[in-house]
Parts: sequence; structure tokens; C-alpha cells
Amino acid sequence: MTAIGFIGLGVMGGPMAANLVKAGFEVTGFNRSPAKVQRLVEAGGRGAASAAAAAEGADVVITMLPDSPDVEAVLLGDGDDDGVLDRLAPGTIVVDMSTIRPDVARSLTAAGASRGVRVLDAPVSGGEQGAVDATLSIMVGGDAETFAAARPVLDALGRTVVHVGPPGAGQTVKAANQLIVGGTLQLVAEALVFLDAHGVDRSRAVDVLAGGLAGSAVLDRKAPDMLDRNFQPGFRVDLHHKDLGIVTAAARDAGVALPAGSLVATLMGALRAQGHGDLDHTALLLQVEQLSGRSPAERSARDGK
Amino acid sequence: MTAIGFIGLGVMGGPMAANLVKAGFEVTGFNRSPAKVQRLVEAGGRGAASAAAAAEGADVVITMLPDSPDVEAVLLGDGDDDGVLDRLAPGTIVVDMSTIRPDVARSLTAAGASRGVRVLDAPVSGGEQGAVDATLSIMVGGDAETFAAARPVLDALGRTVVHVGPPGAGQTVKAANQLIVGGTLQLVAEALVFLDAHGVDRSRAVDVLAGGLAGSAVLDRKAPDMLDRNFQPGFRVDLHHKDLGIVTAAARDAGVALPAGSLVATLMGALRAQGHGDLDHTALLLQVEQLSGRSPAERSARDGK
Amino acid sequence: MTAIGFIGLGVMGGPMAANLVKAGFEVTGFNRSPAKVQRLVEAGGRGAASAAAAAEGADVVITMLPDSPDVEAVLLGDGDDDGVLDRLAPGTIVVDMSTIRPDVARSLTAAGASRGVRVLDAPVSGGEQGAVDATLSIMVGGDAETFAAARPVLDALGRTVVHVGPPGAGQTVKAANQLIVGGTLQLVAEALVFLDAHGVDRSRAVDVLAGGLAGSAVLDRKAPDMLDRNFQPGFRVDLHHKDLGIVTAAARDAGVALPAGSLVATLMGALRAQGHGDLDHTALLLQVEQLSGRSPAERSARDGK
Amino acid sequence: MTAIGFIGLGVMGGPMAANLVKAGFEVTGFNRSPAKVQRLVEAGGRGAASAAAAAEGADVVITMLPDSPDVEAVLLGDGDDDGVLDRLAPGTIVVDMSTIRPDVARSLTAAGASRGVRVLDAPVSGGEQGAVDATLSIMVGGDAETFAAARPVLDALGRTVVHVGPPGAGQTVKAANQLIVGGTLQLVAEALVFLDAHGVDRSRAVDVLAGGLAGSAVLDRKAPDMLDRNFQPGFRVDLHHKDLGIVTAAARDAGVALPAGSLVATLMGALRAQGHGDLDHTALLLQVEQLSGRSPAERSARDGK
Repeated sequence: MTAIGFIGLGVMGGPMAANLVKAGFEVTGFNRSPAKVQRLVEAGGRGAASAAAAAEGADVVITMLPDSPDVEAVLLGDGDDDGVLDRLAPGTIVVDMSTIRPDVARSLTAAGASRGVRVLDAPVSGGEQGAVDATLSIMVGGDAETFAAARPVLDALGRTVVHVGPPGAGQTVKAANQLIVGGTLQLVAEALVFLDAHGVDRSRAVDVLAGGLAGSAVLDRKAPDMLDRNFQPGFRVDLHHKDLGIVTAAARDAGVALPAGSLVATLMGALRAQGHGDLDHTALLLQVEQLSGRSPAERSARDGK
Repeated sequence: MTAIGFIGLGVMGGPMAANLVKAGFEVTGFNRSPAKVQRLVEAGGRGAASAAAAAEGADVVITMLPDSPDVEAVLLGDGDDDGVLDRLAPGTIVVDMSTIRPDVARSLTAAGASRGVRVLDAPVSGGEQGAVDATLSIMVGGDAETFAAARPVLDALGRTVVHVGPPGAGQTVKAANQLIVGGTLQLVAEALVFLDAHGVDRSRAVDVLAGGLAGSAVLDRKAPDMLDRNFQPGFRVDLHHKDLGIVTAAARDAGVALPAGSLVATLMGALRAQGHGDLDHTALLLQVEQLSGRSPAERSARDGK
Repeated sequence: MTAIGFIGLGVMGGPMAANLVKAGFEVTGFNRSPAKVQRLVEAGGRGAASAAAAAEGADVVITMLPDSPDVEAVLLGDGDDDGVLDRLAPGTIVVDMSTIRPDVARSLTAAGASRGVRVLDAPVSGGEQGAVDATLSIMVGGDAETFAAARPVLDALGRTVVHVGPPGAGQTVKAANQLIVGGTLQLVAEALVFLDAHGVDRSRAVDVLAGGLAGSAVLDRKAPDMLDRNFQPGFRVDLHHKDLGIVTAAARDAGVALPAGSLVATLMGALRAQGHGDLDHTALLLQVEQLSGRSPAERSARDGK
Repeated sequence: MTAIGFIGLGVMGGPMAANLVKAGFEVTGFNRSPAKVQRLVEAGGRGAASAAAAAEGADVVITMLPDSPDVEAVLLGDGDDDGVLDRLAPGTIVVDMSTIRPDVARSLTAAGASRGVRVLDAPVSGGEQGAVDATLSIMVGGDAETFAAARPVLDALGRTVVHVGPPGAGQTVKAANQLIVGGTLQLVAEALVFLDAHGVDRSRAVDVLAGGLAGSAVLDRKAPDMLDRNFQPGFRVDLHHKDLGIVTAAARDAGVALPAGSLVATLMGALRAQGHGDLDHTALLLQVEQLSGRSPAERSARDGK
């Protein structure tokens, strides 16, 4: 039976680790917050007191952390509790499922290779619900043989598991994912404000838009929250802002022009600058309303005149 | 049995009229090109020599024409062959399924009302395939009672038939549809060039993107053509440019800010200005490639160095 | 001595008419508000009770009105008080100095020509101060001979008087002027918020920026008001929004891509939608501050935490 | 007499060092290319064989180099020929006149302070002509006392010398300068294509635009080159692209939304990606022409039809 060390048991990592337990893997997990480790133990896994301890003796180590520096610290750090790459037996597989910079992913793979450790970048799309339901889309960069070896583990976490190219390619595809998702959210937000300003029944409009070429996962899963003005995350503006920074930097490096992508990055950054970093990224709606003088406050002020 | 006059038997109107015949309606069709009328006759309908003749004695008249002035000419013109509104018996229903300006739709409804004729605006989404398969999304503006009366006819043409609001609301929702579709095409084009520049296998990337929150009808139905560099219409840039003109004008009238929508309108207009008006709107890809110095010609010139 | 009929004695037209009196012309003026007519009388001109009366017997008729429909009403209307074109002797010159659509300017010139009346479009730049000081820039479209004939009158109003092309060309150049001015205001607003966020002394920064390639009339004349948060017009957002509508429509007609111009039109429209139509166009600063979470209210709320 | 070490004798640094000689300073210069050192010697200065040698014994050291890493290498490097900061006597003043990242400028000042060396950031605007004529605008960040001490040297190089704030503030103002200049170039390019498409005499239009609120240094100095299609640098697209990267990164760090600035950065990047990095930044005109289907090649192809 494959032994898995799972580092990072947050909103995404928690249910993912639990799904691995369910699938029959022996999972040892670590998170800074002991409560989250405890939850894994209750789900049938084991707890560890440090990243290093979770990784010890594992066949596969999975990291699911917020940003590039977090993953670098865990894998390359020189403390007693981290520096996981140096502690692994040659041949061990590390699967980083965080969303980080493609160049960092490539350098982690190289760092692993110099120690005989095989590293994949395997970020995911599908959100908390996809993590819980094991229906994530997983975009994997790295060596084909390593991908084949890790595949049974990944299949326990997602429904669409695709090897998209060499090291870093998974993160590149994830960057493209975040570009499309952010842009589609903005388009749907603009459409909803446009419809509202013209007095259209927006709920019915969403139904009919969803049935044609305008249909999208964003329209299906996110437009209802927008109409309900429910901006609880979900996926926070702060994180999407971080991701769009990765997109625009990678585009700049490669000399690719992203007119729409750059605009969306600016708008997401503005949303954050206005203090909405903790809301769900559907809060792009708030900004379109504001720019159109149609926020609820402005509208009641106007109606009250 | 309901008698239907069908005016405009083009790429969309032709198969739609044929579907009405199949559904058991008595359909009399007119098109400027006799060949298209002949095709309806072969499908079991009747041909008429003018719009006026097609409408004569109809219970329901459907118009499916390129742009606002075409619909106005047919319904309000003062020639022997048009001026359909003046020729109809009170109570007749006119369903304009063209994509036209919401304000023109409203004025046509008013013009009908003053003659006792009931007018609906009912533009569609779903493309030629949707017309052929009778799976169109149909967004209907107008009186609820008239919608109910016309519903059996519309159900023979589409799968998602929704009454979205008062006169003009159908066209407003169609405008929103074109905003989202144009923007999503641009986002997917940017993502594809971005992935290509980073050496990712784009076909696999599209597969995995389609499975997550980035998934959309555009990604499913249009990305394959982009990857194959097949820009045969489909839906022409010229028409989408016209539609985005409707979107930006309606947004301006209503005081709604569409940052992404305005950008997409500019980019679609540029594509047309560069002589690509007759290509499918997926040709937005060509422009992103050009802006990124990555058109096939530029790339082979570079590789040849 | 040349007799001038001057129609429209507002913020701009009032001082312009007075300058013509000073220059020795015989000026008969009309405005809807009698108080403004009275002011011209006090400056040495004559008052008229209607546009038609002001134009009667004039060698040159000048119109200085808010928008295209106003000019059309005065020149082409069929009331007792307007319809000026029909009342003029053949050979009379009409100089429309309003900012209107180039296509309307062309059709007014054609309408004049069919009556033997010579029409120029001659919009101005330079603001109220330029009108008072007779230092306006005047961009003239129309026949070269007519321009030569009208020149002495125009020289009494402005410092830079240039014949830029055929009928409508004056309005086209004015549209380009409004594009550049609106865009430069936005750029300066962005620069000021950027400098403020980095703790730079903005007044000194403006001094040094003005001395280099970033220098502009906007920086010289408008940045001080921005720093003082003085948004009293001057030139109202509503009017600049109208003008940018002319720019984007004319660009669309001609198939010209204005990426920056379209963005600025969107931002000016948003400013107006938010209720700032009556402020000076320097109020673009307010919107950049808002998008950056740096409006005075937000900043004091933050400092108070 | 003040002894000056001048490191970087390129297009800008060469004439600047010569101006210091003319002003009576004792100047010892270094450049990687001996030919440029020779030119300084011919102008009355001394040559040095390394950055370290040029700085030895200087009262004031000036650096004028392409980018952040170049300045860091010269001041902080650990080779025999660089590491200038470590070689200077306490109290020496270093004036970095390169355009670099504000955060790097701040860290260089801190690195100097820890060694008793006083560092100013003092980037310039005004181009090669301004360097030759000693009419540069110089924007200085750093300690007020150090600024006062360095002032006589700076006055020999520029006409507008302003202390704009603490360390890094000079670079921040230069970033704002590059934002405004890039944006104004784009606006003027859009205006010129717009005017051309409408058949206006562009040279006369520029004359009249320059006289009003649209007037700017860009219009005065750069529009003539655009009209002549002279895209020889001047200031290269590659460098402006680098500078706009500084602008957008600094804006992102500070949470400032630059809608127009981001767009201009995207367009400048696209121009570079298309292979125009070596042209003058006025080449933004080429891109607007291309997006509008109005490049000379396209137009003759069309006329030839």
C-alpha cells in the first residue's frame, strides 16, 4: 500500500487528504493548525507534528500550500521541521498541488532531480466542492513516467487528470485557467449589471444564457451567488490577485500580449485595493456596479430623492 | 393548424423553417434568393414571391434577418412587397428572431400594437447547428400572454425558451449573450497563445481546462477550431462587430460601464478593420498571435533565421 | 464693416461675442436667457429676440451651442424663430463653432450649399480662459475661399487659427483633441495617485514632470486643480462624455482602433454614471482614487483603525 | 574643486560627463567600451580602466547605466573592478542617474548608509538632446542635505532639478514620467491614425492641437517624427518596455489601479514582441495602424485592388 505524506490540510487539502484515506491510502498529514490535523485523524489518517515528520517514509509526498514561498520553505528550508527534499529516499515522488509560479515549479523539479527525488507540479481547478467530491481537474507537469507512477493517487482526487507537458507546464495551464476564470467572472458581472440597468429579469436571463454559446461553468456555479449578493468565499480575491500576478508576469516573460488578461488583472487588483480581498472573486460584480453608479447604496439614495 | 409566414431563409432561417414544417406547421416562406425558397418547398413548405405574400393569412409571422434596417423595411416599409404590419389581421403574432437593437425592437412592438398586431422579440443563440437540431436558446421579450400563445411555435425551434421580460428584453439578453461570447472567445484566444508560448500541449490543456471552472461552451465548441486554424464561419466577425455595437450603445444609453466589453468591441472592430470580417469570430486568435509576434508567418521567419 | 449674428452667448459664446465687439465688428446676439443677451448689450453689442432676428442681415452668422441637435434646430428648424439657413442672403457665411458630430457638420454644409450659404465648421479648444483672452485654438473645416473670407472674424477670437481640411474636418480635429485631452487627464490622474501612494511630494513632482517629455498643457493647467481637489467646471464631465461619444462613433465608422481612446470613453462614462457629470473633467482623479481604495474617506477610515 | 567619478558613458552619460568637464569639474570616467572613454578624454576628462578606478578618490560618483542589475553590480559587486560602495571614503556622495526600480534605489541608499556613503537617486528626463544641451529634468530622491551638497553638480547637467522626496522618490517620479510619456505617445498615435482615416491634413491638425489643451511635449517633439515615419531612436521600445514593467510592478505593490497605464504597458510589450524593440517608442504608431488595417502595405494592397 502506498504511504502518502500530505502537507497543507486547509480548505482544499483537508478534504483531498480525507479522500485519499477513503481510497485506501495510508495518509500522514501535517498542518500548522493542530485542529486541522485532528480532523484528518478523525477521518482515518495519521497526524504528524511537522512537515518533515509527515514526509518521513512516504512513497508520495503531496504539498497543498498558499504560495510559492510556502512550498519553497517546506521543500528546501533548512529548519528541523522542513527541508523535506533532503529527507526523502531516492525515487520518492513529490506532487506539489499548490498554485505557484511556473519558474519556481521548474526549479523545484530540478532541485528534486539533483537529490534523486521526482517532482511533479499538479495544480487543481474545481474549488472546495471539487475537493470534497473528488471531482477536481488536475493539470500535471513533469516527467511522463513519474506521472504514470503518481496517477493512482491523483485519480483518487480528481475526475479530469491530464499530463499537459514538462515540469512547470501544470502551473502554466493553471495560470491560463485563472486568466479565463477571472475574465469570465468579469464578463458575467458586466452582463448582469447591463441586464439589471435595462430592467430584465436576471434569473431568467441567466437560464437562457446558460443554454447557448455564452454558457460556462462560471455562469452555472457563480452567477447565482452574484444574484444573491453572496460574496462569501469560496475563492478569495486576494488569491486570485496573486494568481493573476503569476499570469501577467509569465506573459511578460514570454512576450505574449494579453489585452483582456491585463485588464482583468487591473480590475482584480483594484477590487483588492478597495478592501475586498477577503471576499469571493464574484465580488467583481460590486466593482462593475460601483463604476456604473448602481451599487445598492447609490440606487436607494437615488430612489429616495 | 397554425399557419406560419417565415421571412428570411438564410443559414439560420432555412433550417428553422424546415423544423417548423417537420413539427406539423403550415409554413409559407420568403427569401430574396429563390434557391432558398425552393429548398423550403422541397422540405414540405410553400414558397412566396414577397414578404407580403408570405405573411398573408398567417397566424404567426417570423422574421429572421441580418440587421435592424432589414426588419424595419419588411415590417414597416411602404413598398408593394413589404409593409407587413399593415397587412396583418388584428391579433396576428409577429416574432422577430433577428438580432437587432433593443430600442428598435421596442418601437416595432409599439408599431404593431397601434395596428392590433402582437410583436415579440425572440433572438436566438446556438448557431447553425442549433438551428438545424432545433436546440436553440431563445430569449423572448414582450407580453406574457403573447409569449404563451407563441410558445408552441418556439418550442419547435429551440430547447431553452425563456420569457425574459417586456418588449426589447429579448434583444437586451441577446446583447448580453454577445458580450459574454465575444469576451470568452478573446480570453480563450489569449490563453491558447499563452500556452503555446510556454510550450504546453494545447490540446491536452483544453481538455483539462474544460473540466474545471474555466469550462465553457466556447472552450468546448470553438477551441478545437482555433487549434485547427479553421476560421470558416460559423458566425462572422462582421456580424459580431455589429452586435457589439449594439451592446456598447445600449450600455452607453443606460450608463453602464463595461470595461471588458468595450475592450472586446475594440478588438473585434480591429479584426474587421484588418480585413477579417468574413472569418469566423474565432479569428480573434489571429490578432492575439499578431500582437504577440507569434503568427505562423512570423514564427517561421524567426525559425528560419 | 462686417455685421455678425452671434447665436449662443454662454460660458464660451459670451466672451467670444464681446471680443468681436472689441475688434470693431457690429455684433447682434441671441441667447435663450435674456440676461446673457443683456450682457452683450452692455459690452456694446445689440440684442435680438430670436436666432432668426440675430441672423437677419448678417454677413457672418456664428453658432456656439451645446450639441448637434441644438445647431440643427437653429439652422434647419421650421419654427418662426429658427430655420436660419433659409433666411440668409446667398453668399452669407455661417461659422458653427460648437463641438458636434463631423457627419452633422458635413450635412449642414451641404444644406447651406443648396441655399447658396457658405458653412464652415470651426470648433475651438482653450476653454473659458481662451475665450475671454481671445487665445483660442480654432480648427476649421470647409472651403478654402470661405475660410479666407471668414479669417478676420476668427482672428479676433483665437491665436491659432488653422484650416485643417474639407467640411467636417474641423470637427474631426476637435474630436481628436478631446481624445488626447481626456486621455492625458486620465494619465495625469493615474500618475498623481501613484505618486501619492508612494509618499512623493506631488507638487514638486508635477514641477519636474512638466519640464520633460511628460510635460503638457493638461499638466500645467489642470494638475494644480487636481492637487487642490478643485473640481468646479471648467469643462463638465457630461460634455466630455458627449464628445468621447463622437470620437468613438467616428472611429467605429472609419474602422480605426482606439484602444486607449475606448478605455478613456468607458472611464469618463463611468464617472458620469456615478453622478459626477457636473464636475470638471479633472474629476477623473476621483475615480482613480476610488479604484485604488485611496479616496479621502477611505483613507481616513483606514487611518482611524 | 570637486572630483567626479562618472560610470557609464553611453548615449546619455557621454554628453553629461562632457558637460561636467565644461562646467569645471575634474571628471574621471569609465565605460566598458574604450572608445567612449577616449571620447571623454578628448573632451578634457580623464579615463579609467574600471568602475573602481573611476571612483577612487572621487568626491561625487555618478552612475548612468541601463538597468537595476547593472547598478547593483557596479556598486555592490565583489569583483576587483566593481564594489564601488566599499571603496569610497565616508561622506562621499553617489548619485545614481540611471532609471531603475524604486525599491532597488532604496536598498542602495541603505547599503551606502551602512558604509557612511550618501546615495541619491536622480533619474532624468529629456532625452539625448537634453543631455547634450544640459537641459535635463532631474528628479532627485534622498536626504535633503545630500541633495543640497550635490546640487552644483546636478545644475551643470539639467535645467529643472527638483528634490521630490526620500530615497527612491526620484525613481518613483521617473516611473510616473514614463507612464505619462508612454500613454501620451499612444494617444497621439491614435489621434493621428484617426485623423488620417478621415482625410484630414495631419500636419496642420498637429499645429492646431498643439495650441490648445491637447498640447504636450510629445506632440511638439514626437508627432513630427511620426508623420515622417522616422522611427530611429531616440528612446528605444525595449527600454520603455523595461520602464513600464517598473511602473506596473510598483503600482501593484502599492495597490494602485492604473487602467490606462496597464493598457499602455500591454501595447508597448506587444510592440516589442512583434520585433520592434529597437525602434523609437514613437513606433506605437505602427501598431495602431496595424490594428486599424491602415499600415502602408495594407493601404497600397487595398488601393491596388
